[in-house]
Amino acid sequence: MQKLEPDQAFWLTAPHIYTLVTSLDVHGKPNVMGVSWVTRTPFSPPLMLVSIGHTRYSHTGIAEHQEFVIHYPSREQAQAAWLCGTLSGRDGNKIEKVGLELIDSQVVKVPTIKHVTVAFECKLISQLETGDHTVFVGEVVATSGNPNKAEHLYDTADKGLFALDQNGKAKFCD
Amino acid sequence: MQKLEPDQAFWLTAPHIYTLVTSLDVHGKPNVMGVSWVTRTPFSPPLMLVSIGHTRYSHTGIAEHQEFVIHYPSREQAQAAWLCGTLSGRDGNKIEKVGLELIDSQVVKVPTIKHVTVAFECKLISQLETGDHTVFVGEVVATSGNPNKAEHLYDTADKGLFALDQNGKAKFCD
Repeated sequence: MQKLEPDQAFWLTAPHIYTLVTSLDVHGKPNVMGVSWVTRTPFSPPLMLVSIGHTRYSHTGIAEHQEFVIHYPSREQAQAAWLCGTLSGRDGNKIEKVGLELIDSQVVKVPTIKHVTVAFECKLISQLETGDHTVFVGEVVATSGNPNKAEHLYDTADKGLFALDQNGKAKFCD
Repeated sequence: MQKLEPDQAFWLTAPHIYTLVTSLDVHGKPNVMGVSWVTRTPFSPPLMLVSIGHTRYSHTGIAEHQEFVIHYPSREQAQAAWLCGTLSGRDGNKIEKVGLELIDSQVVKVPTIKHVTVAFECKLISQLETGDHTVFVGEVVATSGNPNKAEHLYDTADKGLFALDQNGKAKFCD
């Protein structure tokens, strides 16, 4: 055990889960962003939280519409998912650019991304300011997915994304 | 895409990162618990959050002493880490029972577990009630670890823990 700088310590926590979060922007247009800072919080009621930077385009939309959908993308969506992390919704229709397909959600107005492993439709129930990020806590009001695709994406510190299944089998994505 | 029950949807999000969180109990005795519901929140200041059930023994201790340490255990600690998730600190010295070794932390009074991949010493700066859990947000005040052990543990839904490195190589733990 040696002392580490915070950056080096955080590097050691990779790989991280990589999700896509959809929201509506202030004009009601769907947007998507890549989010690794996500976790479940209680079982009952089922809640999840995401931490989103104040300057991100999605931040304003989630605060305004109080809804979002958290998706665990499938292996086939790796390239599109990765691109979502490199573009901003401010610069045009990111979802169209990266080639993701949207479908109506069951409950919320924010659309769901098709073909993902699993999607959680969330209604914002509380939020907490943490430095330059806001933790948005959402109640899961509907879920959908593909149970036969029990794998999703992890972000390494420096080697891109890989898909990992529940048997620990990983495959890097081109 | 099909509708899913929340339980089935959450199952599809596995594997999850598996961390160990140390704290002091109300008597000042160190305790440890297994936590999967953990994530980083902002870069600046460096913050992390953990979601802990109200009934957990560690919950009272963290609320009382306002400090905790989040550890990413190494492959060699898998068995002890797993046991931590099955025992309660109410029933005696869990740390001793599972065979983990403690060392003094750099800044906080809560001790650090030796031989982990990386440890984050945290001072509680805020908390948020989310149903039957509390989200504890900690400022990372010191970090330590073993940069040559860039792998840590993931919890599957039904197959125990596996260790995963940054190259996507996974190995199930006995």
